[in-house]
Amino acid sequence: MINITHKSTTLRKAIAQAVVCVSKPETIQAVKDRTVPKGDVLEMAKTAGLFAAKRTADMIPDCHPLPIEFTSVSYEIGEMEIQVLVEVHTVYKTGVEVEAMHAASVVALTMYDMLKPIDKGISIQHIKLMEKRGGKSDQKADFS
Amino acid sequence: MINITHKSTTLRKAIAQAVVCVSKPETIQAVKDRTVPKGDVLEMAKTAGLFAAKRTADMIPDCHPLPIEFTSVSYEIGEMEIQVLVEVHTVYKTGVEVEAMHAASVVALTMYDMLKPIDKGISIQHIKLMEKRGGKSDQKADFS
Amino acid sequence: MINITHKSTTLRKAIAQAVVCVSKPETIQAVKDRTVPKGDVLEMAKTAGLFAAKRTADMIPDCHPLPIEFTSVSYEIGEMEIQVLVEVHTVYKTGVEVEAMHAASVVALTMYDMLKPIDKGISIQHIKLMEKRGGKSDQKADFS
Amino acid sequence: MINITHKSTTLRKAIAQAVVCVSKPETIQAVKDRTVPKGDVLEMAKTAGLFAAKRTADMIPDCHPLPIEFTSVSYEIGEMEIQVLVEVHTVYKTGVEVEAMHAASVVALTMYDMLKPIDKGISIQHIKLMEKRGGKSDQKADFS
Amino acid sequence: MINITHKSTTLRKAIAQAVVCVSKPETIQAVKDRTVPKGDVLEMAKTAGLFAAKRTADMIPDCHPLPIEFTSVSYEIGEMEIQVLVEVHTVYKTGVEVEAMHAASVVALTMYDMLKPIDKGISIQHIKLMEKRGGKSDQKADFS
Amino acid sequence: MINITHKSTTLRKAIAQAVVCVSKPETIQAVKDRTVPKGDVLEMAKTAGLFAAKRTADMIPDCHPLPIEFTSVSYEIGEMEIQVLVEVHTVYKTGVEVEAMHAASVVALTMYDMLKPIDKGISIQHIKLMEKRGGKSDQKADFS
Repeated sequence: MINITHKSTTLRKAIAQAVVCVSKPETIQAVKDRTVPKGDVLEMAKTAGLFAAKRTADMIPDCHPLPIEFTSVSYEIGEMEIQVLVEVHTVYKTGVEVEAMHAASVVALTMYDMLKPIDKGISIQHIKLMEKRGGKSDQKADFS
Repeated sequence: MINITHKSTTLRKAIAQAVVCVSKPETIQAVKDRTVPKGDVLEMAKTAGLFAAKRTADMIPDCHPLPIEFTSVSYEIGEMEIQVLVEVHTVYKTGVEVEAMHAASVVALTMYDMLKPIDKGISIQHIKLMEKRGGKSDQKADFS
Repeated sequence: MINITHKSTTLRKAIAQAVVCVSKPETIQAVKDRTVPKGDVLEMAKTAGLFAAKRTADMIPDCHPLPIEFTSVSYEIGEMEIQVLVEVHTVYKTGVEVEAMHAASVVALTMYDMLKPIDKGISIQHIKLMEKRGGKSDQKADFS
Repeated sequence: MINITHKSTTLRKAIAQAVVCVSKPETIQAVKDRTVPKGDVLEMAKTAGLFAAKRTADMIPDCHPLPIEFTSVSYEIGEMEIQVLVEVHTVYKTGVEVEAMHAASVVALTMYDMLKPIDKGISIQHIKLMEKRGGKSDQKADFS
Repeated sequence: MINITHKSTTLRKAIAQAVVCVSKPETIQAVKDRTVPKGDVLEMAKTAGLFAAKRTADMIPDCHPLPIEFTSVSYEIGEMEIQVLVEVHTVYKTGVEVEAMHAASVVALTMYDMLKPIDKGISIQHIKLMEKRGGKSDQKADFS
Repeated sequence: MINITHKSTTLRKAIAQAVVCVSKPETIQAVKDRTVPKGDVLEMAKTAGLFAAKRTADMIPDCHPLPIEFTSVSYEIGEMEIQVLVEVHTVYKTGVEVEAMHAASVVALTMYDMLKPIDKGISIQHIKLMEKRGGKSDQKADFS
């Protein structure tokens, strides 16, 4: 685990995405209509994502435990895919990009788990960092 | 959460994959040579995956807690990507495909976390079920 | 911890309740209209309850870890209170009444946490077992 | 999850209660005499409460992980009820009232679990915030 | 993780020990008299041990999650040491020796943590399996 | 739990050890040669130790949750024993000696678990604090 005792505390932000790709438009429609038998997919997955952001250091060996001070989960719903976006903020010595990516992956996995009874062809794609801000290597534009 | 009290206990298996895509061949070489500054990527990620398979029900709301009776993590190392394969077995009333997918995603996220100091362009792709066996809807060939 | 190695495995069910008492009707209205600033209270609290049922043995010292095979969370919404009902099933050697009570309390606490910015006078009342079935001491009528 | 990155760090305190109501005085006597078959109820429940205070963010979706810097559990034992009082302190950007309420509920649930073999009529009542201090909305008198 | 899907379910028991060695007899006396400032050492450590037995698979990578069906914690108090004994039972496909050793180590660490303000010279010794029964390689005599 | 709200935040370090004693030199050789059937013992145990340092407050009742800002795990391999050394740093109000001891014990238990198929005579010895720095009671020399 990298030594961060000497680093300075600053506001740090990250946005990560995951994309849930379905095999038929009816799956997306059922999500929108809240008619998926297992329940309200977008709400349940969002809640799972909030927990996942907070528990990243429990799952990834080298991640430092850190004060998650903001998490949001949002969705862009397309015809055959749902883009999950997770934004995490902290005021601490290290960034929250892995926290945002971990939360995005758990949101997507929760959607997969809730949708697999109605669609056997789902996969999760493009888990990646979209933007980060606040450390020495800012990427992309300001997303405040 | 689906009611499984009436279901029969059988041997169930699942294999899931995640693919870690890097932005330059030197990253793959460092993994192979065990010269990544944060440590032995393949070994550390494998251990994280073993824990993740067991803790799936802690992260995914509708997943039943179940007796994970076998987990293996293996890798196919290409020129610009590492394919993670996780196989999980149980003898229980419901399958382990989400467990395998969750473990594969945590293995990939651990690799991302360990490699990001040396490669800023990594993404995780193609988290999906490869094979399952033992419930009413077997997919693909026997993988025993 | 009580020794249950010799007990027989049977279907066991429990229903527990918790009651969230608010201080003004507007609070209930906001829950129904899904206009609470922190989000969809009923959905988020339900998800928290699913996790809590599964993690009871992590929080209560003498509870045995057991296979939660069904959990449901439902609500009865009154003018000044919301009754939370959690039903849990297992096929195992010991009952799930503490699991149902623990989940009901976490559902209620999640509602408290989400509602406190709009209502400072909330309390949680009447956490108790409503019905249980399947061990040597059935209580109340069949609730199947 | 509410964004607290901009809030100022101050000493914050909360006291919450839960009340365990029994159905016969012999139950209270057994607790006092430390003759409950499952063990020393007050000590075991106190320990469960210390853990619960620390793990609130694991159970309640919108709770921020925060540095619990003091927790105490105390009891007021009446003829037919035991009042549980939990006090939590932090020096952080948000209060600890849900932490105190969560810990109080887990203390009460542990007592329920240990007492149910000798008393089938126990309920948990009046989980509520008694006092808080240190944020913008102090309630009640100083309890230092 | 070893594949246990094909193994037969039998009653399995294990007893493990850990020894807490203090640097002066006054430390032992304070434990016996329940005058340690941090609280009742034997009771609090016992409760921590109950949780630890149940959470072994969360801490040790290759341990299978399994149904802990009995755990007891007992003490032999000497002049300069306290022997911790933890007994764990399951009816499952693999043994519980690591569960017993893990619980014994957490009991001992809890005692260390509570005693360090009054004794700076404590160490933990002799964490080992004392007896096991029920798999193919019984060790020592029956301890039922 | 001791009240630390008033304490000052400083850099604090601790080193703890645990010693894994085997019953034959072949066991040590298999660890060195990475031929233990269960996998790479030193790497897997190290990863388990990183998680354990971070989760100490989940296992030990009175330990405060704190920002682990550095953890390292190293080994001294002798003829019949392996000495595990864990170093932990934080910048906080209380020390990390129990965190270091807890991590050392989990590293040793993981080694025990992986080695027991090839050596039935393993014990864990001498879990103790080697050095600490940064609070009011420094012990031993500077280990920076």
